[in-house]
Amino acid sequence: MSLTTPTTTHAPVSPVAPSSGALRPLGLDEVAITGGFWAERQAVNGTNTLDHVEGWLEREGWIANFDLAAAGKLPEGRRGREFSDSEVYKYLEAVAWELGRLASVVDSDASARAEALETRFRAVVARVAAAQEADGYLNTRFGRPGQGARWSDLEWGHELYCLGHLFQAAVARHRTSPGADDGLVEVARRAADLVGEAFGPDGIQSVCGHAEIETGLAELGRALGEPRYVEQARLFVERRGHGVLRDIEWGRSYYQDDVPVRDADALRGHSVRANYLSSGAADVAVETGDDELLDVLAGQWARTVARRTYVTGGQGSHHQDEAFGEDWELPSDRAYSETCAGVASVQFSQRLLLARGAGQGADYGDLIERTLYNVVATSPAADGRSFYYANTLHQRVPGVPADPDVVSPRAHSSLRAPWFEVSCCPPNVARTFASLAAYLATADASGVQLHQYAPATIRTTLDDGREVALEVETGYPVDGRVVVRVLADASSPWTLSLRVPAWAEGATLAVRAAGGGDGGALEPRTLVPGTATVERAWAVGDEVVLTLPVAPRFTLPDPRVDAVRGCLVVERGPEVFALETVDLAGTPLEASDFADLRLDPATAPRDADGGVVADVVDARTGARAEVALVRYHEWAERGPSQMRVWVPALGA
Amino acid sequence: MSLTTPTTTHAPVSPVAPSSGALRPLGLDEVAITGGFWAERQAVNGTNTLDHVEGWLEREGWIANFDLAAAGKLPEGRRGREFSDSEVYKYLEAVAWELGRLASVVDSDASARAEALETRFRAVVARVAAAQEADGYLNTRFGRPGQGARWSDLEWGHELYCLGHLFQAAVARHRTSPGADDGLVEVARRAADLVGEAFGPDGIQSVCGHAEIETGLAELGRALGEPRYVEQARLFVERRGHGVLRDIEWGRSYYQDDVPVRDADALRGHSVRANYLSSGAADVAVETGDDELLDVLAGQWARTVARRTYVTGGQGSHHQDEAFGEDWELPSDRAYSETCAGVASVQFSQRLLLARGAGQGADYGDLIERTLYNVVATSPAADGRSFYYANTLHQRVPGVPADPDVVSPRAHSSLRAPWFEVSCCPPNVARTFASLAAYLATADASGVQLHQYAPATIRTTLDDGREVALEVETGYPVDGRVVVRVLADASSPWTLSLRVPAWAEGATLAVRAAGGGDGGALEPRTLVPGTATVERAWAVGDEVVLTLPVAPRFTLPDPRVDAVRGCLVVERGPEVFALETVDLAGTPLEASDFADLRLDPATAPRDADGGVVADVVDARTGARAEVALVRYHEWAERGPSQMRVWVPALGA
Repeated sequence: MSLTTPTTTHAPVSPVAPSSGALRPLGLDEVAITGGFWAERQAVNGTNTLDHVEGWLEREGWIANFDLAAAGKLPEGRRGREFSDSEVYKYLEAVAWELGRLASVVDSDASARAEALETRFRAVVARVAAAQEADGYLNTRFGRPGQGARWSDLEWGHELYCLGHLFQAAVARHRTSPGADDGLVEVARRAADLVGEAFGPDGIQSVCGHAEIETGLAELGRALGEPRYVEQARLFVERRGHGVLRDIEWGRSYYQDDVPVRDADALRGHSVRANYLSSGAADVAVETGDDELLDVLAGQWARTVARRTYVTGGQGSHHQDEAFGEDWELPSDRAYSETCAGVASVQFSQRLLLARGAGQGADYGDLIERTLYNVVATSPAADGRSFYYANTLHQRVPGVPADPDVVSPRAHSSLRAPWFEVSCCPPNVARTFASLAAYLATADASGVQLHQYAPATIRTTLDDGREVALEVETGYPVDGRVVVRVLADASSPWTLSLRVPAWAEGATLAVRAAGGGDGGALEPRTLVPGTATVERAWAVGDEVVLTLPVAPRFTLPDPRVDAVRGCLVVERGPEVFALETVDLAGTPLEASDFADLRLDPATAPRDADGGVVADVVDARTGARAEVALVRYHEWAERGPSQMRVWVPALGA
Repeated sequence: MSLTTPTTTHAPVSPVAPSSGALRPLGLDEVAITGGFWAERQAVNGTNTLDHVEGWLEREGWIANFDLAAAGKLPEGRRGREFSDSEVYKYLEAVAWELGRLASVVDSDASARAEALETRFRAVVARVAAAQEADGYLNTRFGRPGQGARWSDLEWGHELYCLGHLFQAAVARHRTSPGADDGLVEVARRAADLVGEAFGPDGIQSVCGHAEIETGLAELGRALGEPRYVEQARLFVERRGHGVLRDIEWGRSYYQDDVPVRDADALRGHSVRANYLSSGAADVAVETGDDELLDVLAGQWARTVARRTYVTGGQGSHHQDEAFGEDWELPSDRAYSETCAGVASVQFSQRLLLARGAGQGADYGDLIERTLYNVVATSPAADGRSFYYANTLHQRVPGVPADPDVVSPRAHSSLRAPWFEVSCCPPNVARTFASLAAYLATADASGVQLHQYAPATIRTTLDDGREVALEVETGYPVDGRVVVRVLADASSPWTLSLRVPAWAEGATLAVRAAGGGDGGALEPRTLVPGTATVERAWAVGDEVVLTLPVAPRFTLPDPRVDAVRGCLVVERGPEVFALETVDLAGTPLEASDFADLRLDPATAPRDADGGVVADVVDARTGARAEVALVRYHEWAERGPSQMRVWVPALGA
């Protein structure tokens, strides 16, 4: 194993920063989202959601567990499930990214907010640090008299899982506030050293039931320049799949211990575990130069996306074991599509994108976009204070509003709830939103690549020292027009690459030279899905205008997916739409049985009043109406309803 | 509340013997199945399955738990889950019915077998009885130092559930061997008295998380003439639904504690619990003359059958909570269709049939038949030594053979397994098969009704003292011809009623007078589904010939069932057929992807070589073949395979 020296001296302020690969991520110090869909969500996330999460962590005693540990009072009084420590770490990671994000927001509110968050961050870190034992062990659920022994329940104990999240939090802190003296990075370092001792080549020859430590260790190793941590991650990746964990009712595939990573052909078992494991395996493959493993992972990704992924990007078809189903097993009504599986899938896709680049027939950026809009953004309510744990694609019976003051069961798929007994989704959404700028753009030797479209500023230095500064203006995804304006002259040509989503047949690209007016515009060229590139000696004010056709469209299912045979879904750009009963009020379909409604395939869905409408027919009565469809990520925002993403086509 | 005096002095030797109602069941002393499909299964059940079940009960220590209890050694060494006592009781019930069945089998093997079974029965009863405490309490999991206190975990403890099964075993013993001195009935009586003290009007105002005690108490009350037991059953039925149990992740609907029985509109929650509760509620309604409750239950039955029941008769759409789904939520691939839910559904349907009679638009006999053939008979392998716990309608990936020597997880839906951690299905199938004769026929003031068709002899006395003796000859369900021959002259006319299944459009009925040859035959008349009747002053040798059209047919799904939109199922008589990959060997479809196969709706399925064939097409390659379909209850008998009951129609 060799740890490649990074090709740039600048370590990206990004959740993942591989030491090599096709693309280098541009971090939060290089990319800022300045408006639009994601900026709104980032704003709500940075205020309401972070406050909400910390409030509930305190209220449920999950932070106080660390105080009890520090005071030597455990196990009595410990609250929460075995993995509750991890929610505190994810919260810390979210705050760390938010502090990084706020650093690029120039207004006094942001600076006051950052100051307050910094204080809170340090307070929680101090409580966590106080609970760490002298040898580096850190977990409030194990290791004390009256508790299970350390590492005694690798199947379900989640000790290593929790530490993986601790490491990711420390990485976020290290990258957004290098050299900060709060101590979180040192806490992580001591814990990682202990893990190496306990589980190294001469240690316990097993793994954690819930993968996460692998990617956490790999990233901590990258951040701190500690190849030992990457090597330990490699050991964990290689050990799994050999039946090192106990068999359980759902089989060892539940925790991916049925088949070694490099022998599997698709993601399987618990969807979050599968994606975290794949992320860690990708990290290990990149750091060790193991192209064979990387190829296997890319193959698993492709098969999983083609056969085991919902149109929303959601993954997980079983409630019982929160797991992937078999190929083509994608029920809408029992979709699990766990929010955290969406978060984890974005992480896995991003790693493959960075390692392999775009345009090899594997649309990593497409899946990231689809998943961000239709899973991750679906989970939180507009106010960022309630969440879907699972994301059904078909609500047959109106949900029951969750009591905003009560902890909910996790996966009723009924209505968004403020907090869950297993409350991984709120802090997982929070850390993703706070670090979202890191998913917009990358750089390589040839130039800069745009993967996600949002109003943004991008400033970076290419490997050869050339400065790149860009401004993105767009109303995407409502509007398909994306203008990329150059803010710095180039001494020599470099290439701007733009992702053209798979749905964007007929997209066009035009270049307008600075100061040229319309006369300066090059003839627009029509693009094919994949990657569009413009190589140019850029001048300040040069503009690239990408026009993505975001007209509403019907999408047909793969005929092998039994659950949605004869159905259609309406999409517009990256957004999936749904039929929701609240939109039937006042139409001739108001009294229809929701199960009788059909989309008329003969008339296309269309834009209307900022939304999308389609013709819906009652197959029983023949009643017909033009009905507004709802953006899936906005469903159930107007109270209890019935909803379906896939709607049967009339006559099917 | 009043306990109606039975209208006959002869208490039916039947699992359910209501004191009033539209129909009186004919018991095992009145009806004997003499050959054919069910006789074969009864023979295997009475030998292999009973031996198998007792062997595993011993091997797993579930009978020995009673020995430990008697010796005062518990809790140490107790084995099995909290409800393991109930499997012993169900086994005893099965043996009691089998002893009743064997009494009508005239051969020396049967008599030797009965003698051996009687010895075994008494031995197990003695071990159970020795564990009963002085005040009547009987459970190996609760009530001792080091165990939970009695009745301390009503949600999950299953104490009352176990006693319900004890009572059903005692009822079976009481009815098949009245006055036997083994003591089982007294054990049950003491336990029932204790339940009355503990849970009576002044007792614990709650219920058992798993319904069963209700129907057990009601039947014990009927059998022993103890109205107190029926009254206690009534209290349990009325209490449930008022949130007397703790809320859980899946909601109180899981154990039907969300809505009072009389306010619900369909069965919901855990499918076995729902059906046992409904059975108990029907018992209570009948015994208390509560027609309003009976109407509500009939309405729930109708809605549940129309909207929440698989084409096989199977019930339960969720693996997670073993529960009914919402209306129309009937996934084939994730069908739970628990074997025990099928058993319980037969019990509920039988109670409604007896209470209300046939032909009120509710086809109780149809559902019983459908469920017996396609759920209960599907569970056991041909040798009666391995079982499906859940009964999927779509196996996407070939199953993994269960180790015949190892306890399996319960619901992999992979291949039949010898025993389960939760092993309710083997003894539940066993008690159903052993008592099956009780489901064939009933009597009322007008005559005798045949509900299920099998070679059989039927002898009973009508209320007015007239003797009826019939012989049924048929090759049903392979052959649709059912001959009912009269074996005793009638002093005055009585009515023979015959169920005409809903699928039997074009059925005919003819009467042939004794000795008349063909010349004695009345012109056959064409029947409509429902009930056919013949009133006649019967003479010995008179024959009624019912001809049911059992040609293979396509059945279309309700368009509101999303999971099978565009699919067809092949049925033949009461049997559901499936497409199984083992039948593709040697055809042009051998190498096809199973997900690409389609039924050609333009060509009807047809009989061939004792089986059914249909035209199957590969939608991808266009390859086509005539393929043998497998009787669903025989699937997976030839090794691992892929299988589907609903097959997409070509062009859908």
